[in-house]
Amino acid sequence: MRLSDYDSSSCSISRAIDVVGDRWTLLILRDMINGIHRYEDLHQHLGIARDVLSRRLTALVGSGVVEKTGYQPKGERKRYEYRLTASGRELQSVLVALMDWGDRHLAGPEGSPMVLEHVDCGSTVHSVLACESGHHVESTDVRLMPQSAALLLI
Amino acid sequence: MRLSDYDSSSCSISRAIDVVGDRWTLLILRDMINGIHRYEDLHQHLGIARDVLSRRLTALVGSGVVEKTGYQPKGERKRYEYRLTASGRELQSVLVALMDWGDRHLAGPEGSPMVLEHVDCGSTVHSVLACESGHHVESTDVRLMPQSAALLLI
Repeated sequence: MRLSDYDSSSCSISRAIDVVGDRWTLLILRDMINGIHRYEDLHQHLGIARDVLSRRLTALVGSGVVEKTGYQPKGERKRYEYRLTASGRELQSVLVALMDWGDRHLAGPEGSPMVLEHVDCGSTVHSVLACESGHHVESTDVRLMPQSAALLLI
Repeated sequence: MRLSDYDSSSCSISRAIDVVGDRWTLLILRDMINGIHRYEDLHQHLGIARDVLSRRLTALVGSGVVEKTGYQPKGERKRYEYRLTASGRELQSVLVALMDWGDRHLAGPEGSPMVLEHVDCGSTVHSVLACESGHHVESTDVRLMPQSAALLLI
């Protein structure tokens, strides 16, 4: 069964890519997951042009991935901060998969500067595949099926 | 510990995004994972302009993610096909994480058209977090640490 046999307009990968498949968008999401929420901090940390940052944030708010809230420091003008919604926080899995791949293939001899730790036990955390029956799944041990056929098999 | 305290130029997420953080690139990788390898088939299935497809493929070959090989059907001119390298195949984890997120948040009432099945048992496969000690890890149960500090703790 080849994906090319299907209309890919309803493909979930394609739809997800339409929302987050952009360099700046992914970097903004990375920074938000890591606790950077204010417009000025995002602007400064990413070195991103203001118009580009504003457009990406507006799109992320429109997609329901990010919420915009106002705050007003005493004696200053109103400012905005941006926080991931519940669906936005779930994009962590995409970023961890990117981090794992970058660590393995792009980190160079000095290794990755950061490591994701399991708070409970201190071991390093990775993105892996698992099935709903609880098996650890190798990447070669999967097949893509049309949902309708999968439903028929239940 | 905030990521903003670190120079992010060596960040593995950022480096991975530089290679694959682009809508067309991710769609090309999706199609290759699903068995579409010929230039003409990619062009047709994705509805992508030839110059854009060529540029993305050249970049992917340059990054070591894709290999280009020639073949010549009898009586026809030489053609090319593109296959993922070992490192390219590892990007499946990124695409499965995107598919999971799209399934949960963008599939609509009709649900996702496709499902990823564990060949051995038939259960649906997802991208999850796990630590090197074998624990299933919740997304809230992780912390980002500088590699140097993590090494000190070993």
